[in-house]
Amino acid sequence: MLIDALQCGEFDRNVLETLKRGGYTCVTPTLGFWEGTLESMDALGLWRDMERENADLIRIVRKADDILACQADGKVGILLGYQNTNLLEDRIRYVELFADMGVRVLQLTYNNQNELGGSCYEDEDSGLTRFGREVVVEMARCGIVVDCSHVGDKTTLHAIEHSPKPIAVTHANAASIFPHKRNRSDAVLKALAQTGGVIGCAAYRNITPAEACASVRGFAEMVARTVEIAGVDHVGIGTDFSYNSNDKFREWMRKGRWTRSVQYGAGSAAAPGAVSKPDWLPAADRLADLADGLADVGFSAEEVGKIMGGNWLRLYRSVFG
Amino acid sequence: MLIDALQCGEFDRNVLETLKRGGYTCVTPTLGFWEGTLESMDALGLWRDMERENADLIRIVRKADDILACQADGKVGILLGYQNTNLLEDRIRYVELFADMGVRVLQLTYNNQNELGGSCYEDEDSGLTRFGREVVVEMARCGIVVDCSHVGDKTTLHAIEHSPKPIAVTHANAASIFPHKRNRSDAVLKALAQTGGVIGCAAYRNITPAEACASVRGFAEMVARTVEIAGVDHVGIGTDFSYNSNDKFREWMRKGRWTRSVQYGAGSAAAPGAVSKPDWLPAADRLADLADGLADVGFSAEEVGKIMGGNWLRLYRSVFG
Repeated sequence: MLIDALQCGEFDRNVLETLKRGGYTCVTPTLGFWEGTLESMDALGLWRDMERENADLIRIVRKADDILACQADGKVGILLGYQNTNLLEDRIRYVELFADMGVRVLQLTYNNQNELGGSCYEDEDSGLTRFGREVVVEMARCGIVVDCSHVGDKTTLHAIEHSPKPIAVTHANAASIFPHKRNRSDAVLKALAQTGGVIGCAAYRNITPAEACASVRGFAEMVARTVEIAGVDHVGIGTDFSYNSNDKFREWMRKGRWTRSVQYGAGSAAAPGAVSKPDWLPAADRLADLADGLADVGFSAEEVGKIMGGNWLRLYRSVFG
Repeated sequence: MLIDALQCGEFDRNVLETLKRGGYTCVTPTLGFWEGTLESMDALGLWRDMERENADLIRIVRKADDILACQADGKVGILLGYQNTNLLEDRIRYVELFADMGVRVLQLTYNNQNELGGSCYEDEDSGLTRFGREVVVEMARCGIVVDCSHVGDKTTLHAIEHSPKPIAVTHANAASIFPHKRNRSDAVLKALAQTGGVIGCAAYRNITPAEACASVRGFAEMVARTVEIAGVDHVGIGTDFSYNSNDKFREWMRKGRWTRSVQYGAGSAAAPGAVSKPDWLPAADRLADLADGLADVGFSAEEVGKIMGGNWLRLYRSVFG
């Protein structure tokens, strides 16, 4: 079982073959960052076509058992998610409709504050708004995972408090290990764990310690430190690995349509452009190597299984059955 | 079994109680006439709320067996449909997504020509366009009934020809019985029947003979004449009965946002406003009386069952299983 709770960029058959070769059981690609309802439905439609055209490689999964089916027949499960809630266009009723269309993960905010709450990059984190509280409850009812990876700590804590089901931070690290706005406080990680949630350790150089990018063992050691904070039942993988990225894609991620200024996202003026992949993860098909790394730093086979995918599967089962 | 393949207007609990009292097994309400994707999803969301708030009375049906469940437990089945395809906003991929959200009937055009084909009110009927041909095939694949009630005869014949599954004219009469642009030619009715389709006889005064509005027997006689054209396996009921209609609703139906001129729809300068309900159908809960009327004009019990709902059920089963 190998589950990566977040990847992004432009997926094509080459990417799907890489995932298959890499032994992935399930991956959540990013279907959108800033898009409204129609463009988000366009992305859903594109993935439906992608599934039909690559039926030998992938299966869009809607239930936890669909992931077990992938484990059984070797197809890569695709769990559909977005890194924003703009697709709701302020409608509580659309949560249910997007769930019907197969969406299983929604990040409450991307890099900007929105109608639901505050982002990790805003000067002030508003906390979860009244609409945000309703959406979190509705997402639990409809079986969509609440993701708080780019969300502010305060808003994340509110989401944990208000959600009737466990929530996720699919792709971030512990800020106490690597201080960065994109990473989450120990208080968030502990609250997340207490309610059955899961954090996915990221392998994106801008938010990940140099040692964790340098070797599998370094990454496994970071995971071990995260486990010390959140517990072994609450840590998984969410690499934030991106495919076919380029300047145009990065500009869309960072600037959407909201600004004419320069924006660095998780980068900085010192590191404004593309960053290299971790040395141990030059291509996505190497992620499975992490299992040995985790064993090397002392995790039991059962613990390795939880971190490599078991914890995500448990969360998915509790959210969408 | 009592199935009405088209009603419209504003549905509320009073209406649902009328349907329940009237013994309806399944009704298709009209969720939209001119609306694009977002407004059409709003209407879907409203019906989801309506179902939750009136769970004692109705069930949104997605499969033919759901209609049998309604017959068994006495709930009124609601089959979701629109009288236009504007909700696709030119996307072939949205057919599948709206099917996922529970839509089971789409009329190819309302009163105006659109991207798919020609309406019964245009001077020239374009026939089915290239996009229209693709949509008809995709609707069959995704399990949505093609409805050609307001569609031009030529476009309807093309839809019959191109659809891999039987199609419907849910609410219109035979033009040879009552000449009106909204009614369909004998050629259409025969082609419809040859491919397993069904026409729903309308009880809307503007398109229905006076005798068929005056008494149940008169309506049953019109049905009998329609059966002479299309055959007893291809005629059902589609009253076009409207609830809580008013000037504003009529104006929206007739004018949408496309014109500043006066539009009469199926009415005329001589009869521009509201028309009265048929004398025998002052309220929707009287529709079941038609069964006796059909028996009176000579239909067997089996034939009455087909006309009152069995033919629609067969069509639904062949389109969406």
